[in-house]
Amino acid sequence: MTLPTDRFYAVIPAGGIGSRLWPLSRAAVPKFLHDLTGSGRTLLRDTWERLAPLAGEDRIMVVTGRAHRAAVEEQLPDLGDANIVLESEPRDSTAAIGLAAAILERRHPGVIVGSFAADHVISGESLFRAAVEQAIVAADEGYIVTIGITPTEPAVGFGYIHAGGPLEVAGADGVKAVSSFVEKPDLETARAYLSSGDHFWNAGMFIARADRLLEEIAATEPELHAGLLELAEAWDDPATRGPAVDRIWPTLTKIAIDYSVAEPAAAAGRLAVVPGLFAWDDVGDFASLAKLNSSGRAGELAILGENARVLADQSSGIVVSRSKRVISLIGVKDIVVVDTPDALLVTTSEHAQRVKSVVDALRLGGSGDVL
Amino acid sequence: MTLPTDRFYAVIPAGGIGSRLWPLSRAAVPKFLHDLTGSGRTLLRDTWERLAPLAGEDRIMVVTGRAHRAAVEEQLPDLGDANIVLESEPRDSTAAIGLAAAILERRHPGVIVGSFAADHVISGESLFRAAVEQAIVAADEGYIVTIGITPTEPAVGFGYIHAGGPLEVAGADGVKAVSSFVEKPDLETARAYLSSGDHFWNAGMFIARADRLLEEIAATEPELHAGLLELAEAWDDPATRGPAVDRIWPTLTKIAIDYSVAEPAAAAGRLAVVPGLFAWDDVGDFASLAKLNSSGRAGELAILGENARVLADQSSGIVVSRSKRVISLIGVKDIVVVDTPDALLVTTSEHAQRVKSVVDALRLGGSGDVL
Repeated sequence: MTLPTDRFYAVIPAGGIGSRLWPLSRAAVPKFLHDLTGSGRTLLRDTWERLAPLAGEDRIMVVTGRAHRAAVEEQLPDLGDANIVLESEPRDSTAAIGLAAAILERRHPGVIVGSFAADHVISGESLFRAAVEQAIVAADEGYIVTIGITPTEPAVGFGYIHAGGPLEVAGADGVKAVSSFVEKPDLETARAYLSSGDHFWNAGMFIARADRLLEEIAATEPELHAGLLELAEAWDDPATRGPAVDRIWPTLTKIAIDYSVAEPAAAAGRLAVVPGLFAWDDVGDFASLAKLNSSGRAGELAILGENARVLADQSSGIVVSRSKRVISLIGVKDIVVVDTPDALLVTTSEHAQRVKSVVDALRLGGSGDVL
Repeated sequence: MTLPTDRFYAVIPAGGIGSRLWPLSRAAVPKFLHDLTGSGRTLLRDTWERLAPLAGEDRIMVVTGRAHRAAVEEQLPDLGDANIVLESEPRDSTAAIGLAAAILERRHPGVIVGSFAADHVISGESLFRAAVEQAIVAADEGYIVTIGITPTEPAVGFGYIHAGGPLEVAGADGVKAVSSFVEKPDLETARAYLSSGDHFWNAGMFIARADRLLEEIAATEPELHAGLLELAEAWDDPATRGPAVDRIWPTLTKIAIDYSVAEPAAAAGRLAVVPGLFAWDDVGDFASLAKLNSSGRAGELAILGENARVLADQSSGIVVSRSKRVISLIGVKDIVVVDTPDALLVTTSEHAQRVKSVVDALRLGGSGDVL
């Protein structure tokens, strides 16, 4: 028997526009294709580089939309043709991750898959690897395993994982049972979670044996499961893949893997959590982008953008520059200015969550050209 | 003897960048070349159209910088060659208006000149004409006459004219002596001025017989006066104008006409004021531009710009759009957003006065390309 880590395959679902980051993030250039940390690398590339030491470059699969194929391949030149799964249209995360698992299980029976969003920011690579390695060991025992981020503040923008007692898994000391998933809390509840010590941020990372993951899907979404198996069977033959995709993909149930797999498995005692001590952010909106880029210091102005020309006086918040224009700020606090060639956003950190509603209004108002 | 109104000549000094309106107003396209009211006409054109019924199109002289000749002529196609005076460099308002007066006095002895800024906003044309006509009558009596704007609120952004007793001038009933000019007051003082009934806003409009105006300049600035006469003598001969300008213009003392003429004349009892009942604004900064374009209603968002694409949610203040970009505002109050192809300004009404300091910083910082 090989070591569980040798049977590990990383899956990166690279979908989701990131509407609350408009006009930076767009349908054509979604969030994962942006550098949001000033590293000079896109979030997708950062994700790849984080996973390559764990899985090997030959064992990372990317699931993305057809429209993003060229951009993904440009970012990941070492991504093999067999490791890119193109969605003809988005069918949510169970379809994306489930199809990857089904394809990989056919190719490599006994494979352990781990799915990691393409557009999150993580620092502390060795802590990340340590957590994933524990998760792989626990996954090999049959658990669906998530990595819970140890909270550093009473965040209200994330969902939480409520951990139960420790699980006895050889070689994975920190692993615990999951009691439940909890939705984004209010501030008071978040404070209680933080002090409890048994609540973790849900970063949407799931590690499981592919066969176990598919079993969970089969139990809750049997039709979706059947469709995924049928697609996987047709996948590796060029003659059968296209017709199968055309026929089956549009019929797949749209459901997030949190609902099809994680919550039912937690309820049944089959979900485990490995506490992660690395820093993590889903960069859900400009308020969190501002925080991330000002190292958490309030009252400062974060500037994101190569060659940004910003002149600021008594101003704080964030400027994202994607044009060559001079940007001058005077006396604006907690401001969010996002300057792109065809669209400009001005708001404040307090209202950052409402950007999505503006995107909806622009779509309805016939300004889809800038979305 | 002709009627005084038949001897009237309007002078429009068209200089001054309007730095506090950057990045809308620029060295290359200063404030007077902009439409700041949404009328579809530049402030210079509006000024011309306001003066033409009073003076006639043949009797309006424009004093402007060489760099703006083409733009001025495009705006004022009926402006004759003899009626454009080009400055090789700015030498402040006494030089600009004094040279116009000296040239016109040589051409039309007994002429009455009235100078009116090219970049103010006025509404109530007939009230404006009535005031200027009274001022012309008083000017013919030898007074230096200014038009004082009847204040409608305790503005702290304008200088005030403190009026004394009425003057006995036949055909000009409302004309009063000027006791003094007073600088921009604080709010409490401005409130006292407003309730006093004898304080008027100083709009910088001066009407006088050219010979009288030159006398006042001669009394306070004899060298400047001598230079202006020498220039005027050489002006109408193409062979002598150029050399005279090259030799004399750079030597002229830079001094505002308020200091060389208005204040000394007021002190000597030779300055008169005609109360004007028309609405006037010098549109000194974006706060006043916002107010002007929202008809004074607070809590509204004024939008200035042809084909502006603005989507605003819970926002107030002003957006000036000089690009084709979609501009989205969320939850920003009293905001000032000025969007141009090469520069963006974000500030608030409260900080609008500080735009000039940013312009200075940009100049010093090597970003003169956007000024």
